[in-house]
Amino acid sequence: MLTPNLSYANLKESYLFHHIAGKTEAYLCAHPDAHLFRMGIGDVSLPLAPAVIQALHRAVDDQGEKDSFHGYMPECGAPFLREAIAAFYLKRNVQLAADEVFVSSGASDELGDLLDLFDRKNRALIMEPAYPAYVDANIMAGREILHLPSGPDNHFLPLPEDSLQADLIYICSPNNPTGAAYNRDQLSRWVQWANERGAVILFDAAYEAFIEEDLPHSIFEIPGARTCAIEICSLSKTAGFTGTRLGYTVIPKDLERSGLSLNAMWVRNRTTKTNGISYILQRGGAAVFTEEGQRQIHENIRIYKENARVLMTTLDEAGIRYWGGRNAPYIWMECPDGQSSWAFFDRLLNEIQVIGTPGEGFGSCGEGFFRFSTFGDPGDTREAAARLLQLLKQSH
Amino acid sequence: MLTPNLSYANLKESYLFHHIAGKTEAYLCAHPDAHLFRMGIGDVSLPLAPAVIQALHRAVDDQGEKDSFHGYMPECGAPFLREAIAAFYLKRNVQLAADEVFVSSGASDELGDLLDLFDRKNRALIMEPAYPAYVDANIMAGREILHLPSGPDNHFLPLPEDSLQADLIYICSPNNPTGAAYNRDQLSRWVQWANERGAVILFDAAYEAFIEEDLPHSIFEIPGARTCAIEICSLSKTAGFTGTRLGYTVIPKDLERSGLSLNAMWVRNRTTKTNGISYILQRGGAAVFTEEGQRQIHENIRIYKENARVLMTTLDEAGIRYWGGRNAPYIWMECPDGQSSWAFFDRLLNEIQVIGTPGEGFGSCGEGFFRFSTFGDPGDTREAAARLLQLLKQSH
Repeated sequence: MLTPNLSYANLKESYLFHHIAGKTEAYLCAHPDAHLFRMGIGDVSLPLAPAVIQALHRAVDDQGEKDSFHGYMPECGAPFLREAIAAFYLKRNVQLAADEVFVSSGASDELGDLLDLFDRKNRALIMEPAYPAYVDANIMAGREILHLPSGPDNHFLPLPEDSLQADLIYICSPNNPTGAAYNRDQLSRWVQWANERGAVILFDAAYEAFIEEDLPHSIFEIPGARTCAIEICSLSKTAGFTGTRLGYTVIPKDLERSGLSLNAMWVRNRTTKTNGISYILQRGGAAVFTEEGQRQIHENIRIYKENARVLMTTLDEAGIRYWGGRNAPYIWMECPDGQSSWAFFDRLLNEIQVIGTPGEGFGSCGEGFFRFSTFGDPGDTREAAARLLQLLKQSH
Repeated sequence: MLTPNLSYANLKESYLFHHIAGKTEAYLCAHPDAHLFRMGIGDVSLPLAPAVIQALHRAVDDQGEKDSFHGYMPECGAPFLREAIAAFYLKRNVQLAADEVFVSSGASDELGDLLDLFDRKNRALIMEPAYPAYVDANIMAGREILHLPSGPDNHFLPLPEDSLQADLIYICSPNNPTGAAYNRDQLSRWVQWANERGAVILFDAAYEAFIEEDLPHSIFEIPGARTCAIEICSLSKTAGFTGTRLGYTVIPKDLERSGLSLNAMWVRNRTTKTNGISYILQRGGAAVFTEEGQRQIHENIRIYKENARVLMTTLDEAGIRYWGGRNAPYIWMECPDGQSSWAFFDRLLNEIQVIGTPGEGFGSCGEGFFRFSTFGDPGDTREAAARLLQLLKQSH
């Protein structure tokens, strides 16, 4: 008799974004003509850059002709893309070998798959508020989770303490959902802590392209990180690939535990459990790292940053505390008048047709906070901000 | 201190196809001008069908314009593709709900990921010779493996016996590497056996499009399969997607173990651990299931079948026993004069520059056999067959 993975029974009923989708659908059923201002799920609204579109078309053409057709790709990534990504890191003075870079289908996929490298008896440390999949993927593996809450007191940037006992540490900086970003000193403390204990950091750098201030974009800018960190990156937010799918992961060859190289283990995992990433998508991804591609994606990022500015100005004007927005595509606000985050969600949906994300969905310490994504349409964002300002002024 | 997944240390050193690649590379270093006839790894050589290319171009255009741009796709697959696949099954009188079909990145990816649904204490039954990743993925999970050898006596189609004790059964039909394919009666016996014991069958149908005779293309053509089987399919061989990547998996809603629905568990897995499959690739995949797409891919399959015919004629003429070729893109031959499969590999490479796959790489009972893929260039296949005939005649 087959036994299913019974850890799935320990998952909480509903995934945050499914719950939001359900409430949104119910609202639209009752108000079929309503226009909704969607600033909830962090999905981008701007199309792919012209350089990427051109590269994708060329790659599709390659697949249509016998002489240029590509069959199976190398499982860990096409050399042209691994080299382009290593060159991109070098511009920040991070030296990587091309075979320390693995091409992936995106950060979500990779964050799930990578857990296969670790024993299930390891304890995972998850700083909260956090992306819910960090927690759920570890529950599925039956792994013990240590929840490390954060809040306004530490600016949502918890630091290590000697008493913490964990083997696998998630760090997302700039953070989803709070938008908070670690500086070099703070990240160095985590790297030192991990090296002292033989812990491994999973560094989620999906939002690094939104950093404006002088903060580390990569954990490998921190000395010592090569012996304790894996970095997971994505083109989803950087280059609008949420529906196109492509990401990359860095596993340094210096990262070993119990005499096993995690880089070599991941090679073995990919060669066993995948047949590589689509040639077409890898060509599109490589275009992101050209000079023209970088210029074009930063034009889009500038538009999203203007959305952030509009929202920050609104919250300043309403006298509401918030975090993020400056180095991240998310703004994390305190709900007014001590409202619960789901109550505030319902109010925004019903009164001003704005959809955000309740902080409670990112862990219990997220209660009382609310996340806005800045990836929406600029016109929608301006209108939503105007409505939000009016609503917040009524609250006071 | 993080403990890595120590089961990786139990893997055998080198993955079959890496070993072949190493030997091939060494040969090319010594003979830089050699032309190699590649009939080893099962990679296709014909380009994507025109209908697919057109759909891919249109989808790329969609991603370049704000009004047609697609962000995050539904994690389990785009409705347009899930419905197209369900309609494809209906033509074979298999009724599926669209939400029993999951879009994947391909069969290899899915065969690795799906194992997360099962407890690690389950015992896996692997009929050998077998695709090496079946074994390695279960070793990585620390799962006990029962190897069920097959051979000429049972035509490489082992049947269940009451004494077999296993929870998770791999069936690949038409088979890689042997090309053998189960008929309805034989598959019914496995389905009955699994239902009686509460076991689950992972049915790898990657080669169903190559069936010529009246044999089941899907395990769901067998009554009772909805309560004991998951079917894993791929467009890699069917439509030349080895480097483009797309597949699909069927998990019936009637499949439950310990009160958990495996369909619901997989929804939860996908929504937690992925963000869906590329919109562009799903549009390309949907074109395969149109009338025009089906006509075009079967033109390609006909070319590969002609390769199979050329090789079968050669082996007939040389008086060599073989299996497959008729309902599968693989031909599984007995090595002449009791040679070992790696010795025969070296001989073909060095003497006639033909690359095949040594049977030993698919399990110890594959020793003494050799696999040819029929996905090569037709001209190459004819020349390779002529050289092979000469070599085999010398052997006798």
